[in-house]
Formats: sequence, structure tokens, C-alpha cells
Amino acid sequence: MKIRIGHGYDVHQLAPGYALSLGGIQIPHHVGSVGHSDADVLLHAICDALLGALSLGDIGKHFKNTDPQWKGIDSKVLLKKVCEMIHQKGYLVGNIDSTLILEEPKIGKYVEQMKEAIAACLDIEASDVSIKATTAETMGFVGNKEGLEAHAVCLLFPKE
Amino acid sequence: MKIRIGHGYDVHQLAPGYALSLGGIQIPHHVGSVGHSDADVLLHAICDALLGALSLGDIGKHFKNTDPQWKGIDSKVLLKKVCEMIHQKGYLVGNIDSTLILEEPKIGKYVEQMKEAIAACLDIEASDVSIKATTAETMGFVGNKEGLEAHAVCLLFPKE
Amino acid sequence: MKIRIGHGYDVHQLAPGYALSLGGIQIPHHVGSVGHSDADVLLHAICDALLGALSLGDIGKHFKNTDPQWKGIDSKVLLKKVCEMIHQKGYLVGNIDSTLILEEPKIGKYVEQMKEAIAACLDIEASDVSIKATTAETMGFVGNKEGLEAHAVCLLFPKE
Repeated sequence: MKIRIGHGYDVHQLAPGYALSLGGIQIPHHVGSVGHSDADVLLHAICDALLGALSLGDIGKHFKNTDPQWKGIDSKVLLKKVCEMIHQKGYLVGNIDSTLILEEPKIGKYVEQMKEAIAACLDIEASDVSIKATTAETMGFVGNKEGLEAHAVCLLFPKE
Repeated sequence: MKIRIGHGYDVHQLAPGYALSLGGIQIPHHVGSVGHSDADVLLHAICDALLGALSLGDIGKHFKNTDPQWKGIDSKVLLKKVCEMIHQKGYLVGNIDSTLILEEPKIGKYVEQMKEAIAACLDIEASDVSIKATTAETMGFVGNKEGLEAHAVCLLFPKE
Repeated sequence: MKIRIGHGYDVHQLAPGYALSLGGIQIPHHVGSVGHSDADVLLHAICDALLGALSLGDIGKHFKNTDPQWKGIDSKVLLKKVCEMIHQKGYLVGNIDSTLILEEPKIGKYVEQMKEAIAACLDIEASDVSIKATTAETMGFVGNKEGLEAHAVCLLFPKE
């Protein structure tokens, strides 16, 4: 067993009448993420990075977006399930780095709370979770506020 | 010598009259990838991640898209050549994680075959190759089916 | 302390009347990058990857784009400051791999000079820095030359 790398990417539309779930918390905003679950683009990217590191398929394989049991679900539940899979395979999460690409709102003041929420799901320290953010400088579907994206990378270490 | 990281990204247009080569196999679809080689966006992203991990330049440097010898070539040939370069430098491929971003078709049923094809080129196990997929939720040039993208990451380990 | 991973992404608009700073050098071109600093999209992605690997926040947290001291600044200064933070935390940069996504100009002939500039800021060898480039095949805001993007990944190693 060796150190393994994962990368995840996710994208969701933004629309009125939806909550904006990001990094496991709800952020007050006039539009929110459209999706079958709570559409937390950051948690989904992190789930995919963790699954990908062990070649376990993607989030859509494990949590089908046509399955009623995942309708509106808090993505922290999905992240915890992914963490269990990682542990069962004999690996521990090293660190996670992520980037949110969204035009608004500013998420700086929520980052610590997001890190704590993610770390709790994965049984790691908040200092092993990183969340960065940038706008798309008004360009493309992120820049015109039609949607938002997230990238995440991770390292997994074999348990001793 | 130390563990090294690589990241690759590629994008191609989709158009009628071209084959859709993805992950080293051909997928039946009414449009295909436009390019000088077989335009396999996933294999190109993986080639770039492997080359980048050793700072060997990019796929365009090694396989110029104006060179007739690469016209229409099966990108598995390019991936094997990249693998030889890695081995010659004294490194082995750890694992690869990748994400396809395309609106259609669904590629889930082809993933195992792609993983086998890629692993064979790199002389690693299929369990050390990961292929995930997501749509762009109808947004941007992927969402309107004008094109498709791929991201790939890898770790390389020094040979003992 | 363990090996850590980081990923950075940045995007800038292109417009006449600005310099095109990329990878720490200036490239002659009829448009340049718009931003508060020199808007070097590649160095910003690398800064974010390094900061992210240690969960130190993002470039916008450390170098606010409303702070007059960073107005028009050479991003190599920012990269050196980030490197100092990494060293103070007890880590060394392993390798960096990056990808520029821009429609023009061709940057191949500048890559070695960029690698040298980046390596000098980080006190590593140029062979531990990789810069790749691709176009967006005329699609989206990169393809229509409205802007350019960069991705970067890195590994950090604990000092002995």
C-alpha cells in the first residue's frame, strides 16, 4: 500500500428558491445551488477526490441522483459515508485542499466553520482541510452567476 | 529522488463526423472529438499529468499537432511513449485519478474497460487508475455540448 | 508532519493597455492581464497551491486586492513571501506542476525562463517546476480570448 492522490471537480447551477449549502454549512444568499441532494459543490468535489484516490468510482455511482433516499440530503452524510469507505480500505485522509469558484457571495468569514464541519466528517484536524475561493472575474457561467464550481485534491496514507 | 505530483488538463471540440475516443476506447455517439490525433481528451490529460510530474514539457512539445506521424494516431501509443519516458527517468506510476466533464453520453458502463486500457499502457493495475465523470449542468461550452474537458492527477514514485 | 498536497486555480481578464505577466516574466503581446497586482495568473495559482497545502488561506487573504501596497506589484514578491511562510512552518517545496489555459500567444519559448524565475523564488531547482500550456480550442471565455486560466499542484515535504 502506498500514498495515493485524488482530484475532484463539481459544478452546480444557482437559482432562486434553493439554499446555498457550501462546505457543510448554509450561507445566506438570494440564490442557492440546484441539485438532487443539497447540491453542496464543495463537499461533492471532496467526496469525488477521496473516492477517486482509491479508484472507487464517483459520487454519482455511490449516491445516484435518481435515488429518493438522497433527495435533499445533507452532503455531510455522504462525506461521512465516503470516509468510512476510505477507512475500510485501510487508508487515512492526509490533507485536503480545495478551491471554490463563485462570483458571490464572499465566503471568507465562513471558511473556518466549513473547515471544522469537513474535518469532523473525516475525523481529521481542521488544519488538514483547506478552502480557498476566487471569482471568475465576471467571465463565463460562473462570472455571470449562472453557476459555481469547486476543485479539490487529497492525499491518502495507508494506516500503519 | 522523491515522490512527485502531476496535473493535466485537456479540452476538445465535439463535432459530427469524428469518432469519440475516450480513455483508450471508442464510444458510440453521434458526435466525436476534433483533433489532430484521435483527440482522446482523457488520455491527453493523463499524458500531461505524467509529463508534468517530471517537468518534461507537455504533450504538444513531444507530439506536435502539425507532425504527420501523429495524424489520427491512437493516443494509447502516446501514453505508452510517455510511460517509457517516466521509467527511463527512474520513476514508476503510483496512482492516477481523473475526471471527465461532458454532457453526454453517460460513460459509466465503459469505465472498467477504459481503466484496463490505461493500466495496460502504464504497466500498473486497473485499481491504480480512476475515472470519474460529471456533466456541466447544461452550462458553458461543455453544457451546450460544444466540447468536453478532462482533468487528471498522478503521483510518481522513485524506483527502489 | 507528513507530505502535503495543494491545488491552485486562477483566472484573469485580458485587455489592451495591460502587460502580460506570466510565470514571473513579461511576454510581448497586444493584450495583457487585468488585476490589482501584475495579474500573473500562473504565479497566483502557484501561490494558492502552496498556501492551500498548509491550509494557510488563499492569496486574497494574504495580499488583499484593495491594499495599495500590492497595487501593480510583481507577483514574484508575493511568491517569495509565500515560500517564507512554507519554510517557517517547517516544510520544503517538492515539485510543482502547472497548466496555463490561454488561446494565444504560444508560450513554449518562454517556459524555461519562467521555470527559472519560479524556482529562484522558491529556492528549488528548475527541474522541480513544470509549466504546460493548452488552448481552449476557441471555446468559452478563454477560447474567445476574453481571459486566461491556470491550474497548479504541489507537494510539500517536512524538513528533516
